[in-house]
Parts: sequence; structure tokens; C-alpha cells
Amino acid sequence: MKVLVLGGDGYLGWPQALYLSNRGFDVAVFDNLARRQFDLKHGFDSLLPIATLHQRIDRWRELTGKTIEHYHGDTRDYNALAHVLTEFQPDAIVHFAEQRSAPYSMIDREHALFSQENNVLGTLNLLYAMKEFTPDAHLVKLGTMGEYGTPNIEIEEGFIEIHHKGRSDKLPFPKQPGSFYHLSKVHDSNNILFCCKIWGLRATDLNQGIVYGAETLETDMDDLLATRFDYDQVYGTALNRFCVQAAYGFPLTIYGSGGQTRGYINVRDTVRCIELACLNPAKPGEFRVFNQITEWFSVADIANRVQKVAGEMGLTVDVDHLSNPRVESEEHFYSVKHTKLVELGLEPHLLDDDVIAGMIELAQHHRERIDPRLIKPTVNWRTHLNIVKEEPVFTTQVQ
Amino acid sequence: MKVLVLGGDGYLGWPQALYLSNRGFDVAVFDNLARRQFDLKHGFDSLLPIATLHQRIDRWRELTGKTIEHYHGDTRDYNALAHVLTEFQPDAIVHFAEQRSAPYSMIDREHALFSQENNVLGTLNLLYAMKEFTPDAHLVKLGTMGEYGTPNIEIEEGFIEIHHKGRSDKLPFPKQPGSFYHLSKVHDSNNILFCCKIWGLRATDLNQGIVYGAETLETDMDDLLATRFDYDQVYGTALNRFCVQAAYGFPLTIYGSGGQTRGYINVRDTVRCIELACLNPAKPGEFRVFNQITEWFSVADIANRVQKVAGEMGLTVDVDHLSNPRVESEEHFYSVKHTKLVELGLEPHLLDDDVIAGMIELAQHHRERIDPRLIKPTVNWRTHLNIVKEEPVFTTQVQ
Repeated sequence: MKVLVLGGDGYLGWPQALYLSNRGFDVAVFDNLARRQFDLKHGFDSLLPIATLHQRIDRWRELTGKTIEHYHGDTRDYNALAHVLTEFQPDAIVHFAEQRSAPYSMIDREHALFSQENNVLGTLNLLYAMKEFTPDAHLVKLGTMGEYGTPNIEIEEGFIEIHHKGRSDKLPFPKQPGSFYHLSKVHDSNNILFCCKIWGLRATDLNQGIVYGAETLETDMDDLLATRFDYDQVYGTALNRFCVQAAYGFPLTIYGSGGQTRGYINVRDTVRCIELACLNPAKPGEFRVFNQITEWFSVADIANRVQKVAGEMGLTVDVDHLSNPRVESEEHFYSVKHTKLVELGLEPHLLDDDVIAGMIELAQHHRERIDPRLIKPTVNWRTHLNIVKEEPVFTTQVQ
Repeated sequence: MKVLVLGGDGYLGWPQALYLSNRGFDVAVFDNLARRQFDLKHGFDSLLPIATLHQRIDRWRELTGKTIEHYHGDTRDYNALAHVLTEFQPDAIVHFAEQRSAPYSMIDREHALFSQENNVLGTLNLLYAMKEFTPDAHLVKLGTMGEYGTPNIEIEEGFIEIHHKGRSDKLPFPKQPGSFYHLSKVHDSNNILFCCKIWGLRATDLNQGIVYGAETLETDMDDLLATRFDYDQVYGTALNRFCVQAAYGFPLTIYGSGGQTRGYINVRDTVRCIELACLNPAKPGEFRVFNQITEWFSVADIANRVQKVAGEMGLTVDVDHLSNPRVESEEHFYSVKHTKLVELGLEPHLLDDDVIAGMIELAQHHRERIDPRLIKPTVNWRTHLNIVKEEPVFTTQVQ
């Protein structure tokens, strides 16, 4: 089976490409290297040093004899998509090629518009290209659990049977996204569902939880195969960031009360989920949704667990409650249906103390690369301050 | 009260500006004249001849002594929005400035991307501009009943109380939009709701049905005040198009069985609904939704009524069932809650035979301007053929 990984140079795209290649798939990656450019622009960097995409691919071939095809391109460039689809002729297209940070999308107007333009129009371009060049390919699209928000009812996998005034219908689950990034994913889901309906495309929308960890069987094979590991306020997700804070001796920064509960998944399970989706494709015309999480925790739970494990490792770690820069419920009901991937064969790696200890050790190993000024949140949902001094807060020149 | 009408040169924007001006509001219009450019590009034209925006505004001042301010600009141009908001300082912003045709959005990839880029990013720009320059202004945004699709349960006004597994929550009504245009409106609704929540903006989302008619008290005052009346396959809506077909002696073109049922509203009620929304603004932080229709009909019902009225006027009219170019249910349940505008004071003008006769007479009066080649549908949801010979069907140059 031929799998094209869009965004195959990123945090998850790269270990995904390796995993599929290792498991015998023919893999190509397509990436515009935007994530590396964001680092350069904002002065961020991965905790783990990462090789260039060319180096990574070369090293993988040296170690395993397996080839990963490499296309440089942007989803907003229709000709680039046409080129890769007609040349590589994928059976499945795994789509990670989006701006994937909520805080990034909330920096200011430009970042909000960029996030929606890049994600929504890029994906719409892809849908047209699939219809034109590979109408039978299976789109495996990364969505996010954040599309649902935190409703006061159980979150179903994409659709819900609603009974209302004596009638009923199975309808798309109502979404309450919490940032311009999350909104872009909801817009995508709506566009993709429609294209499946009118053109008979096939798609799986994976509403993924917060991914933690940086090590898979394949990335562990060589330093040059490492994937990025972000701990900054914009790209670092809760658990990853806490482990880095613990290793550095920085207090764990909880936004608000810490009752915010979210679904989580180990990167080792992410790569398997996507393999399962590829191996069990949606039917022509089908738009199906899987909730790609294995368990859920509150932010305070996560912080407490990191604090405890770090303590056992001899580290003294404080917990700081910061004023919440986001607009979100801090105490809420949370329950998620997530059985479809298990039915296909997923055997979850749950979060245990060994996993947390391993992540703290990883951060300790790269301690000299930690830049503490990147950790505190400055992006605010209400005021959209800018995050870097070099870029002035946006001011309009009234004509 | 100062009201800014974005898209104030269009089919509904112009009579809206006149109506509000006549009722004592201070009115400004902001328009990029895109709708007139679409006519030029595709060879369409309004059945009623329309004056330029400058002529219209001048004539209105001559007749009534009332001034309508005129800004030329595009919602995608942040500086143009900043200029009009800071200079005019509106209390309410009535937002018609979107590409508003479903078939137009389905022509091909370029038209699909244009529709979503123009509508979604333009509105996101507007939201940022409102936050920055007029955070207390009330956004009155035109949505469409087509956002809901045709669920098998009653359509509520924006939100629905869902009972699920022993719990309940009031959530956004699930949407099932049927074109890239309708999708753009759903994306907008989601973005606007979020901005009300995080920034305390106030907004009313008017999910409007199919508008018919071209005459209001104000447009009838002078030929130079006429608004456009479209009968072509891209911009002409069902009832308007049928009246023109009847006047010309062309069969009424029903897509498929004709069981497709939609909400309708007279243009005279549209202008009043928006006045009511302006006079009764949403609260800060509130995102409210009104279903702006007064009744609903199937396409076959509408065709039968036009055929009957035309017959009484001595016209012989056939009904043609064409193969449906759209992907939609042709037989379905349809019931819509639409009480909120009535509670605010709307007294509907329902569709009666006199209204239909008046529209047919209007079309007869301008019979020499009817171009029959514009009536048959060539835009197809499944194949997205192009509609004009001058523009080749999109082909990709593979690099």
C-alpha cells in the first residue's frame, strides 16, 4: 500500500512516515517545512535536535534499506499537489499538513487568518486534487478532540442520534471549538464530509487528543531519526511541557484552576491508529470519524503526576497556577466515546509513571537546550498580544 | 442609530440601505462591486436595469434629502475596514458582503476557493476590525437557512437542547450545508460565535430563507432606485426565476422531483427583519440566531402556483423536470421554528397570487432584457463543469 504523508517532516508526520515505512508500506512525504520556519521566525527550537529532512531520509535508507520519497510542496499550491498525486499515486493520504497550534492561531489577526487560510483552503485544494487525480484514495485527516469543546453530554465519535419533539436523526456532533486553529479543523471536517457526499471521496477524520512523548521504535534507532519535541508556550502541549519544566527546575505552569480535562494519547499509539485507519479504509462516499485518544486527565492531574514522579527522581518541582490566558471552562463534565480504533485493533499504551519518568529523563538529557523564556504564556485569547519583540503589536494604518 | 451596510450595492443590500435611510437611520454602504463584476465576467445581467451606486445615492438624496455615505472597499482589506469603522463609527454593521450563490461556488475549484476565502477570511477580518475599532457595535450577519440542510427533526433557531444518555446541554444546532457557499456560511457562524465568546462582541446571525421579489416602498419611488433581479441559473433563486420563465414562455425548470422544501421570505420582510435586529441588539458577548423566513414551500408547489397564476394572466406555461444538478434530498421532512423575529414585531407579507402576478408583470415589463441562454443549469455539483466558454475547464499543469 502506498501512503503519502502530508506534513511528513513534523512532530507526528515524521515518526508516522518511519513507522509506516518500517511496517512495509511505500511511503512518500510532502512538506513545505513551515514548522521549521515558525521556529526561525519566533526563536523557538525543538528540545531534541532534529536533522534536516534530507538527512533523516538518507539515514533511514542507510539503516534499513527502505526508501521514503520526498516532495517539497505546499497544500495551497494546486500544481504541487497535482504533481505528487499523479506521480506517487497514493492509496492513502495521511494529512498532517496544517498549522497545528491553538496559541499560534491566537497571536494576532495575521496568525489567525494564516491558520484558517492555510488549513481550510489548503485542505479544500487537496480535496479537489484528490477528486481530479486519485478519486479512490483514502484521506486520513488529522482533526482534534478540541473540535468538540467540552459539552455537558458524552462526546460521540463524530455523529449523534438526536431525539427531538418526537422525531430523530443521526446528525454531526455539535462542535464548540476554542481557538481559530480549532475552528479551522471544524471547517475542514465540514468541507470533507461534503466532498465525500458529492464526489464519493472516502475519508477518515481522526479527532486526536493531546499527544505526548517523542520516542517510537523507529526514532529510537538513531539520533538522526529523532522527531521534534516542543516545550514552548505555543507548540508545547501540557504533558511534554511539564516534563521539561520538571527537568529544568521551573514550576509547572497550570492555566487557571487546572480542572480542564482533555483526551491524551501516546505518540506510539498515534502512529498505530493511523496505520489501522489506512489498513481499514472508509468506503467510497463515506466520511467516518474516530476519536483518537486512549484516556483523559485534567491538567491538574497531569501536573500532580509529573510532580510526584519527578520527586521520586530526586527533583523538587513546584506547581504554579497562572491566570488562564485562554477562554475555556476550568471545571466541566468530560466523557468521550473512543471504541472504534480499539475495535480495529489498537492496544493502548496508557500513561504510567515509567512513561513520565522516561520523558523527564529525555528532557534532562537535553537540559542545556532548554530556553526558559519560551515557557511562560504571553499569547492571550482576550487581548492577542504578540509574542516576539521583533514584531510590533499589529497597528492599522487608517487610510 | 448609525448603520453600516456591507455589500450595500447588492440585491438586498441596496434596498436595505434605502429602507433604513427612509426610516431615519444614518446609513453608510461599503461595497467592492464584486457582484457587478461577476455579471461582466460571466455575461449575466439583472432583469431590471440598475443604476450605478453613485447614481442611486444621488437620486435618493434628490428625492428625499437623505444622504447615504458611500465607501468603496473589500472586507479582505483590513485597512479599508479600519477606515470605514473609525470614520463612520457604526452602531450596527449589517453584513451582506459575501459571495452569495451556491451554484457559483460549485463552478470549479477556483470559484469554490474564492467563495470560502472571500466569505470566511473577509468576515474574520471584519471581526478583528470590530474588536479593534468598534467593539460595542452590533454585527447583523446574513446567514442562510441552507446551513441547516434538511434534518429529520425540527430546525430550531441556532441552538438545540440535546438529551443524551441521561445528561443534557444546549448546543449549536448541527449543520449540514449543501454547497461550498453554504459551508462558508457555517464556517462564518462558528467564527462569529467564538469571537462573541472571547471578545464580548455582540452578533445576530440571520439564517435567511430564499428571498423573492424586487420591489420595496423605496425602490418603487424611482427607476434609478431599482435593485437587481436575477433570473439566471447561478444567481436567480427559484421563485424569481420561475416568474421570469413564465413571462418569457420558457418552461419552469424544476431540478429533480421538486420535493425539495425551503423557507421563503419576501424582500419587504427581509428589510424589516434587519431593522428589527438593529433596533433590538444582541447583548455584549451574545451570539443569537434568528431564522429569517415566513413560510416554506416545495419547489414543485412554487412552480404549480406560478403556472396557475400565469394561466389566469393568459400565459401558457409548461413545467420541466430536469435531472437535478445538485446533490440533495428531493423528498424530506421540513419544519422550522421561526418565532423570534415575529416576537420582535415582524408582520409577514405572505406569498399570495397577487405577489406572484406582480412579479410576472415585472418580468413581462422587462421581457426584452431576458436572455434565455442564462436559464438552464450547467453547473453540476458532481462534475463542476465551467459555465462560460471563454474560461476553459480547469486543467492542471503538472510540474
